[in-house]
Amino acid sequence: MKKLSLHDTNEFSEKSFKRFLLHDSAYFRVLNFNIGAGQTFPVHSHPADGQLTIQVISGEGEFLAADDVSMRAVAGDILVSDISEPHGVRGITDMRILVTIAPPF
Amino acid sequence: MKKLSLHDTNEFSEKSFKRFLLHDSAYFRVLNFNIGAGQTFPVHSHPADGQLTIQVISGEGEFLAADDVSMRAVAGDILVSDISEPHGVRGITDMRILVTIAPPF
Repeated sequence: MKKLSLHDTNEFSEKSFKRFLLHDSAYFRVLNFNIGAGQTFPVHSHPADGQLTIQVISGEGEFLAADDVSMRAVAGDILVSDISEPHGVRGITDMRILVTIAPPF
Repeated sequence: MKKLSLHDTNEFSEKSFKRFLLHDSAYFRVLNFNIGAGQTFPVHSHPADGQLTIQVISGEGEFLAADDVSMRAVAGDILVSDISEPHGVRGITDMRILVTIAPPF
């Protein structure tokens, strides 16, 4: 049992989004990405079984999917995706997301 | 791929904490619990492999563990626990938590 805090990783970079690994186990991996206004976590996918959630912690942006699909994404929104489905995130404002991947690949 | 919103389940009850199942798959289960001020999600555990996260979305309270251990829990705090470890949550203010369990048992 351990307690983590998103307050410890509230850091952005002008150059690119920031990535923080918060937890990794045989069961799931938890990451915090901080995406600056105008930055994009590009659409990507992995040929692995499993699913992930992308939860918006703060800020505003878009969830991105295949075929240039985008969905408005604000604090409290959660995207559930297969790991093998194309997914990404674009920041409109500075935007923090929490990503949980199960199982890790 | 689907988009969920925590805004859809922002509901409390005077009687007991509220439970909303947001997602369930072979990989993980995602639940939102809304715990009113003074309400407790009692300490419990399950004899199953896997881990869970308890993330505070809003409000303030305590993460509970075995032997009367408690830890301050505010928005942005995340408890990572084995499913088989005793865990619970007490609301000091109205408190929303997101629970992710992998794999579901």
